[in-house]
This record gives sequence, structure tokens and C-alpha cells, in this order.
Amino acid sequence: MSPTLTNKQVILTSYPEGLPTACTFAIREVPVPSLKDEEVLIQTLFLSVDPYMRLRMYHSPIYREPFNLNDPLTGGIVGRVIDSKHPNFRVGDIILGHLDWALYNVAKGEHIEKIDPSRAPISTALGVLGMTGMTAYFGMLEIGQPQAGETVVVSGAAGAVGMVAGQIAKIRGCRVIGIAGSQEKIDYLTKYLGFDVGINYKQPNLFEELSRACPKGVDIYYDNVGGNVTDQVMKLINWHARIVLSGQISMYNLHEPDTGPRHFRTLITKSALARGFIVWEDYKRRYPEGIQQMSEWLMQGKIKYAENIVEGLENAPKAFLGLFSGENLGKQIVKISD
Amino acid sequence: MSPTLTNKQVILTSYPEGLPTACTFAIREVPVPSLKDEEVLIQTLFLSVDPYMRLRMYHSPIYREPFNLNDPLTGGIVGRVIDSKHPNFRVGDIILGHLDWALYNVAKGEHIEKIDPSRAPISTALGVLGMTGMTAYFGMLEIGQPQAGETVVVSGAAGAVGMVAGQIAKIRGCRVIGIAGSQEKIDYLTKYLGFDVGINYKQPNLFEELSRACPKGVDIYYDNVGGNVTDQVMKLINWHARIVLSGQISMYNLHEPDTGPRHFRTLITKSALARGFIVWEDYKRRYPEGIQQMSEWLMQGKIKYAENIVEGLENAPKAFLGLFSGENLGKQIVKISD
Repeated sequence: MSPTLTNKQVILTSYPEGLPTACTFAIREVPVPSLKDEEVLIQTLFLSVDPYMRLRMYHSPIYREPFNLNDPLTGGIVGRVIDSKHPNFRVGDIILGHLDWALYNVAKGEHIEKIDPSRAPISTALGVLGMTGMTAYFGMLEIGQPQAGETVVVSGAAGAVGMVAGQIAKIRGCRVIGIAGSQEKIDYLTKYLGFDVGINYKQPNLFEELSRACPKGVDIYYDNVGGNVTDQVMKLINWHARIVLSGQISMYNLHEPDTGPRHFRTLITKSALARGFIVWEDYKRRYPEGIQQMSEWLMQGKIKYAENIVEGLENAPKAFLGLFSGENLGKQIVKISD
Repeated sequence: MSPTLTNKQVILTSYPEGLPTACTFAIREVPVPSLKDEEVLIQTLFLSVDPYMRLRMYHSPIYREPFNLNDPLTGGIVGRVIDSKHPNFRVGDIILGHLDWALYNVAKGEHIEKIDPSRAPISTALGVLGMTGMTAYFGMLEIGQPQAGETVVVSGAAGAVGMVAGQIAKIRGCRVIGIAGSQEKIDYLTKYLGFDVGINYKQPNLFEELSRACPKGVDIYYDNVGGNVTDQVMKLINWHARIVLSGQISMYNLHEPDTGPRHFRTLITKSALARGFIVWEDYKRRYPEGIQQMSEWLMQGKIKYAENIVEGLENAPKAFLGLFSGENLGKQIVKISD
């Protein structure tokens, strides 16, 4: 490769208190280092924008090690191999990795994996056939254990995880109620994805609407949101309910969890389960099974997905901030290169 | 039987707000009805006093149906058959049942079971070989899944459930920290039962003491208490921790759960589980297995138990109230008759 190739990276400039701002991030130009043996040079095509990343923007660890200040953010990346000193990778290969938010990455071959571009649009390796799809798949099926006829509530239902989780519950024969933040999202859920009911959490009578939508109570609560939405749903859970703790985006900008009703008593009186999970820690070995099933459902039209694609590395911070104001319908992705 | 036999029952006079008082209960005298076919007349020997009963003293159901006003409380009873019109029960048989808090009960044979008085003192059918022992057994082993070397914290550790749960974790090779409310209880846990550390929750530096006692964090939290004690323990839970929600006595006098830190975010960031259970609903079929193992441990001296025995039906309400001021060490029982 030309030694003059210049990289751009999105770096973290400070640990934000509360909601990050545009100033929390900066773009840095650095030279691309030359390849060593076993390494691969990757041009970023798509990068994945995910709420959990906020948990690594604290000085003290909340989830995993914090991002280092003045180092690039890291996340899910789909890219193209443009140079390789690793026997398993050739120029032109499409790969998936957990890499820097940057135009280019130099990665060891063992840290990336090839994806098959004939399977589906390659951006889906970050979404429905990737981390968020697998979160929905294993969270709903393994923790939720949905049975036909049960009532399932999904919060953050128009997000990348929620919309897939709800559709999986529909495939299993459940009544599915989606909670989201706009009429547009609710229409998408009910008219396009087949959710039975959509509820806007911004309205004043959330509990009353939920009660009407769940006359038999709630058997599975697939939670991406936490906070007040969760507090209202918890009032309706049934005996032996399963609370799938997939995300708690309402709390990711808080250094310590805030206060709310103590739900542990409800878990006892309902003999119920609440389980948090991190899909790539808890279910990574079973990804092939999940991806195969999800691919079949995609081909059969049983699962639909949405991607919210922004273009340009310089717009990645804004896309990240948009997660917290509910701007995305479906998976938030930044397209870096064709 | 003599038709002149007079019964005494403990009845609920009102649904208390907050902590019940002596006036919440009354003693009523009623005649004992004559036996019908398939029925058995039982003289109460011991009755079980349990915190969960408070959850049935609300006007609206929190756990199961509320007790009816001016009807007897019901609970675990060990009694002696003094008359029988059921082929499986003879005068002199010792039985266990969920029956009225009363001197006598008339019960259908199908609702009671014989216990073997040669196995252990018959009061243990209410405690270590009964509901509270099985709660500890299945909660710790099935939900907690203790592994040798793990750190286990038990709240309400000097209660009937907690002291057995902690000893089971010791049998499994764990480091066990018990939280209780007096120095006497802590001494009992550490000097007599073999807990590694005892901590008094009433001291001001609970979190600091817990941190010192759990230098490797908390893998299993066996919770009988809830509230602030739980909030402090939750700050120390490890990756893949199991929170066994066995009781939440600090909240049983509240119609709605009060507020505290929202632990659901912690469950995600630690990929942790919180599971509530009601032992006689969730594990009833497996009682024989649990009772057999617990009996063996008792005979081997690996499990010890304590009973706090009060005498006289008229003292049953006071014994119940004592649960909420921490007066009992071990299983609270009322002895009604020899």
C-alpha cells in the first residue's frame, strides 16, 4: 500500500456528564501504519451505532473498560480488505470486526471474520444478521421462552433490537404490544411489521393504554428502555413472567442508576424472572444457529428490518447522539464508503 | 368426638396500613363442626409464623387472594389426628397441612399429609424440613447454582430461610457472608453455623463493611430482605451474578413497593439474573428430593437449625409482629399443644 494513506478516526475527547454533545467527540487524522505479518488493512464500509457504547464513556468502568480519552471509539464495522498479510484474507473480502470508528483499520486476521456478501446486504451483518438481531433472537427465545397465546410487551420497539424481538414473538404466536416514541414508529410497527398494538410512551396515560392493550397481563416484557416505561409495564406482569433485560437506554446517560419503584418485590410475588444479558458474551457460540434461522425468516418474509443510514464518518457522532433522542427507526448505521 | 368441643381461631379484623398491630388480630371462639366423610379432625401442635403472610393482609391481591376479614388466618400447621372419617388417617397420626390458625381444624384428607415423627422433631416439618428449609434448598441450589470459591451474601441470614441457605452455600464450598440485625445473631452465624463473616445492617457503614467482606465481589445474593440492604449488595455484584429473590420483608408492610435505585441496569451491565420464586408453587414436586438431602445433612451435622418457639395460640399474633422487628433467631413457631 501507499505509505501516504491518511486515516480519519472518531475519538472521545472527554467523559461526558449526562447526555454527550458534539464536543464529546472529534475527528483526528493519523497516518495508516504499514502492515505486519498476519495483519489486514480494512476500508470501512459501514459502522454500527449502538446505545451500549455510552456505557464505555465513563471514567470508571460500568460495562467493560471505558474508552480511552483521545483514542478512537470502537464498534461493529463492516469493511473491505484492501491489503492483506494474512493467508485467510484477500483483497476484496468483506469482513466484520469490532474495530475503530475510522476510515481504515489495521487488524489481526484472528480478530475479524469474513462475511458472505451473497447472503444479504452486507450492512445486515451489523443489524438483523448481526449483534442487534442476535440480541433479539436469543433474548426473546432463550430468556423470554414465548408460548403461543402469551402477551409480549416490547419497549424501544422501533429500534434495531425491539422490532426484531417483537416479530419473533409474533412468529411464535404471541400477542405483541410495541412501545415507541412517535406515531410514525407506531404506524410502522402495526401496519408494516404486524405488531398487534403500538403505544406512544410520551402520552400521559401510558399505564391506562398498556392496561387496555394487555387485558390478560404481560407474560414477557422485552425491555430496551428501562425507567418509567418499565415501571408501568411491571405493574401488569403475570405469574411466571419473564423480564428480558436487553437494554436500558433511558439510564445510559446516568453514572449511577436513578431511583424508581423497587421491582424485586414484584418479582417475588409473581414468581418472575429478570435477566440481563450481553449477547456477544453469553450467546456468541450460538450465533451460527441464530444467523441461519434469521436468514431463513428474512427469505420467507417473516422478519422485516429497517436501517437508518447516515453517510460520512464525520456524521457518526451525530448519529450516536440521535439514539438518545429517538431519531432512528431500526438499526442506526453510518455508511463510510461504497 | 364430643359435640361440645370449642375451637379458638386467630382472625384478621382489618387490613392494616403499614405495620400490623395487636388490634389487627383477634381470637374467636366457635364450635368445632362435626366430621363428614373423608374429613379428619386435627388438634394443632405447632403453627408456622411466616413473613409472606403479610402479603395476604391487603384488600387487593398482592400475592394470592387476600385473607378474608373476620376469617381465620391460614398457614403451615403440624397437628395430631384426634378423629378421622378418612381411610388413610388414624387417631394419633401426625400431619402437616395448610390450615387455620386455630386449636382445631377439620380438613379433608386430601388436603393434609402424614409426617414421620421418627425422622426428626415434628416441628421441623414447618422449618428446616418444611417450607423454609425447602425455600433455602431450592433457592440456593437451583437459582443460585453455587460453585466452590464463589462469594455468597445472604440477607436476613439469621432467619429460618437465611441460616439454612448460608449453610448450604458453605457445604458447596463458598465464602458466605451473612447480614443480620444484632450482635447475638451475628455471633450465632459465625461461631455456631460457620458463616465466614457476619455484618450488622444497622450500622452506618454497611457498604464499606460489605466491600471489605467481599473483596472479590458477590456472585450470589440470596435476598430475604430487600430495600437498602439489597441496594448496597447490588453495588458489589459480579459478572453473571445470581440474585435469589427469596423474600423482601422490608417491603411487606407497603401496599406498593417503595423507591430505590433501579437495579435492572446493573443486571444488564453484569449480565446477571434476578429470580423470584414461591417454593410451594415452583418446587413442590421436588420436595421429597429436598427433604431427603436436608435430612441427611441434619444427621451428618452439616446443617444446623434454630427454632424460636412461643407458646399459646393467643401469642401467635405477637410472634407474627416480631418477625418485622427481627425478634426471631431461626424459624418462628407457635406451640399450641403437647
